[in-house]
Amino acid sequence: MARRWNGWGDDSYIKEVPEHGERLIRSVIGETKALKDASLESVMAQVPESRLPQHPLVVTAAEDRVRHARGQSFPDWLAMRSGKFGVFPDGVAYPETSSQVRELLDYAVKHDVNVIPYGGGTSVAGHITPQASARPILTMDLGRMNQLMDLNEESQIATFGAGTPGPLVESQLRARGYTLGHFPQSWELSTVGGWIASRSSGQQSLRYGRIEQMFAGGRMETLQGTLDIPTIPASSAGPDIREVTMGSEGRFGIFTEVKVRVSRVAEEEKFFVVFMPDWESAKTAVRELVQNRVPMSMMRVSNAKEARAHLHLGTKESQFKLLDRYLRLMGLKDERCMLTFGVTGSKFQNKASLKQIRKTLKKHGGVGGPLANIMGSIWSHGRFKFPYLRETTWARGIAVDTLETATDWDNVDQLMNDIESALETALRSDNEDVMAFTHLSHMYSQGCSIYTTYFFRCAEDYDGTMERWRKLKHKASSVIACGRATISHQHGVGKDHAPYLMAEKGVLGMRMIKTLADDLDPQGRLNPGTLLEDSQQADVLATPVKGKAETQH
Amino acid sequence: MARRWNGWGDDSYIKEVPEHGERLIRSVIGETKALKDASLESVMAQVPESRLPQHPLVVTAAEDRVRHARGQSFPDWLAMRSGKFGVFPDGVAYPETSSQVRELLDYAVKHDVNVIPYGGGTSVAGHITPQASARPILTMDLGRMNQLMDLNEESQIATFGAGTPGPLVESQLRARGYTLGHFPQSWELSTVGGWIASRSSGQQSLRYGRIEQMFAGGRMETLQGTLDIPTIPASSAGPDIREVTMGSEGRFGIFTEVKVRVSRVAEEEKFFVVFMPDWESAKTAVRELVQNRVPMSMMRVSNAKEARAHLHLGTKESQFKLLDRYLRLMGLKDERCMLTFGVTGSKFQNKASLKQIRKTLKKHGGVGGPLANIMGSIWSHGRFKFPYLRETTWARGIAVDTLETATDWDNVDQLMNDIESALETALRSDNEDVMAFTHLSHMYSQGCSIYTTYFFRCAEDYDGTMERWRKLKHKASSVIACGRATISHQHGVGKDHAPYLMAEKGVLGMRMIKTLADDLDPQGRLNPGTLLEDSQQADVLATPVKGKAETQH
Repeated sequence: MARRWNGWGDDSYIKEVPEHGERLIRSVIGETKALKDASLESVMAQVPESRLPQHPLVVTAAEDRVRHARGQSFPDWLAMRSGKFGVFPDGVAYPETSSQVRELLDYAVKHDVNVIPYGGGTSVAGHITPQASARPILTMDLGRMNQLMDLNEESQIATFGAGTPGPLVESQLRARGYTLGHFPQSWELSTVGGWIASRSSGQQSLRYGRIEQMFAGGRMETLQGTLDIPTIPASSAGPDIREVTMGSEGRFGIFTEVKVRVSRVAEEEKFFVVFMPDWESAKTAVRELVQNRVPMSMMRVSNAKEARAHLHLGTKESQFKLLDRYLRLMGLKDERCMLTFGVTGSKFQNKASLKQIRKTLKKHGGVGGPLANIMGSIWSHGRFKFPYLRETTWARGIAVDTLETATDWDNVDQLMNDIESALETALRSDNEDVMAFTHLSHMYSQGCSIYTTYFFRCAEDYDGTMERWRKLKHKASSVIACGRATISHQHGVGKDHAPYLMAEKGVLGMRMIKTLADDLDPQGRLNPGTLLEDSQQADVLATPVKGKAETQH
Repeated sequence: MARRWNGWGDDSYIKEVPEHGERLIRSVIGETKALKDASLESVMAQVPESRLPQHPLVVTAAEDRVRHARGQSFPDWLAMRSGKFGVFPDGVAYPETSSQVRELLDYAVKHDVNVIPYGGGTSVAGHITPQASARPILTMDLGRMNQLMDLNEESQIATFGAGTPGPLVESQLRARGYTLGHFPQSWELSTVGGWIASRSSGQQSLRYGRIEQMFAGGRMETLQGTLDIPTIPASSAGPDIREVTMGSEGRFGIFTEVKVRVSRVAEEEKFFVVFMPDWESAKTAVRELVQNRVPMSMMRVSNAKEARAHLHLGTKESQFKLLDRYLRLMGLKDERCMLTFGVTGSKFQNKASLKQIRKTLKKHGGVGGPLANIMGSIWSHGRFKFPYLRETTWARGIAVDTLETATDWDNVDQLMNDIESALETALRSDNEDVMAFTHLSHMYSQGCSIYTTYFFRCAEDYDGTMERWRKLKHKASSVIACGRATISHQHGVGKDHAPYLMAEKGVLGMRMIKTLADDLDPQGRLNPGTLLEDSQQADVLATPVKGKAETQH
């Protein structure tokens, strides 16, 4: 696959948007006009001379530096499309071993260089975006450390190079009959080391767990030496070092080899889509299923707005009309919600699970029928394709972004409504309407994640479009930070979420993270600005929200 | 219940040891002679004058100080039985609210006092044993903070005072139809705050998880202020502060209110005991069940030595003979192992689980029959009574202790054999034989815990007995520390395990924990000597084992 230099994924793949889908979006946000893209050549021409001293592992060619300058956040997108990158790394290294990573860290200390670890470059929160710095910046691309180094079948532990991307994780394991089962939407590109460093969660977390449940140990190279975390199934011996390194986003060190808990490939896996009469019945059904511990591999509930948008964006108009007629016939009208779920396991257990699931869904008025299978299978085939949508709508002047959080069940409705309404009204002063819709996914007995997609109209120019996004992001993030929720359930903090982190961690929690970072990296050389706001932090967002969860004595 | 001042649990309960059980122990360790117990009065007479300045919440009466001076580790036991306590706390406080805890911490700073948090006093690793100190020592007993403060049924989160012991946790929840499901063997006395501070695991962790999976958030009072951890189902926003505080064993602060994830009481719960032909078949069966994710609430495999000992210690001789004859008839001879397991859930799911379990056990030669139910029910009725055994054997000059660890499946046999043989041979230079046996419990896809019980003969006097224990503990702990395992799967570090912690955490991991402790408690006022070896540390054990898992650059 040839990777898009200025957008998502495979250059040759295009996700079509059906006309009635585009009409639906325009019915909310109005007519749009596309902005002009910059060319790769014009961006390469801007790349300044590298400030890095020579090293055999360090490449300073312009294209490498352009291709490692940005992730996939909306500001990253605007930078790539406008060609206004601002800052480029001074060079890119492609280490192949832990000892080369060590060598590069030693080089960084010796020559006073900052280091940004780079996995798949899929961050949607600005993790790998360099900020202006008096020190030269080296981006360390771990993509050549992509091998299954060991598979212990008895203990079901696999050792991977940290830069192994999703498809190479699965293909190497499946050749031996195993799976990791970690499928974030970014799976085609994101890497196992990145998943760990930013605490990722995959679509089938209900069976396989979050990356926290998979990460068993491994090696992190820090500026103070190598941290080897042994694999132990569980321990009561003090604070968990694994849990301290997960989510450290390159601030404490760089993962080079990681050991993950794997499973035998399941005998059977099935996905289904069922429609529920309304929001309350849909939400209650999934809550009951997860709180009753019915073995399943995923559940997702699209609210009425998302159900409508997905059916418009994912089907031909004629198909949609047929489905709509059928559902109305069954009594499901405009309030209907869409429940996607999966079972993964032995045929015997899946059958037992499906019996329990059907009983619960029936109780709450679910309508599935023969369509449930077909639509489930469509979902599973398109599950990694959503990010390509931005490419298609962008060409029509429609900007799209998503945001996500997690909260307890008793707060789900309030928070979801607050987020959607914050987005819908954020641009009212500009007379702009925003289209927002939401699904719940990643179900826990305590609560779930809330994932909201929003479309808005590009402004006349890039700066205006960025300004619109800033308003949207800040308003929604403030609602989250003040709303008993996490600033990110599955995408990490990066630079975009750093101003809102204190509301979750508290003054003392922030202090604990900062204390560790300062001890391991006293000169602030590793991924500055990410996770913790540093003085140099680029002004990505407006006023930070400070936490109220804490009282200092 | 009146609590024993110098041993385990309820003063009125006596666990009988059948004669053929005692014979079995003596057949290994030889004839024994009991040591003389000290009286409470004689110990109270030793208590020195308190060095604490007056405070309305601080009690300095001798009996309070005696009853809070020791936990339940073997050295604690010897101290309580010999009356040689060494150090007593200078006073005990019984705060009833978070703000009283804060007030006491302020008092500690103002008057240069050390503070030991005390939950149920059930530590088996020296967590709450005060060490000699120039500063006065205040033990803070949280036992009056024992109320269910809130139950959110929708999000299934309960808020408890940190000092709530197991029975009060469950009775308050069950009155509302809920359970926490955390049942460590110490359940009758240990507290929810203690479980969190020392990363406890309960017997039904296979269904309910370890305390790490239950702890959702709460309040810790530190010397730098209050740390309020919000409840969020899951977060990718940076290192997990919950996981940093769990296992901090009083070094970072004192939990006052804790929020835990609870479940509806299950429709049905059943326990079974099945016999397996040998170790390999038993171990493989449980590994297959857990790796295939069959929903169960517990599994425990006693090796042949433990199966034999348990049947001798837990049944009358006539019962044992009948059972033995039946099992031999079924082809299970001396190599037979005992598998105890439970299912908890809906009747429908339990039935499905039992079908899968029976298939697996049959494949591996398991023998259950009508006895499986009866013996399972006996296990569940006696599940919290094992700790009382020490009282009974002690009166006959037989010392007993246990130790536990966890490791990956591929290392289980090696480590179990090494631990047993380390114990069996540790006293050879004294011409003493030791009886050791083991079970596996707390099954994970990656591995399991290994729990070994050992009996040895009391020496002529207390000092000699302590010396024997030191040798045993050090030898087994060294085997664990060098054996790809944790120094504790479920009992924490305390003072007894602190010398062995570096092998698991590494130089950098230890540094991270120490950095946090120094930042939050720069004067080392909170529970010194626990978790981290401090300079003042009493010389409980011999030479510490330093880690090899780490290389310093």
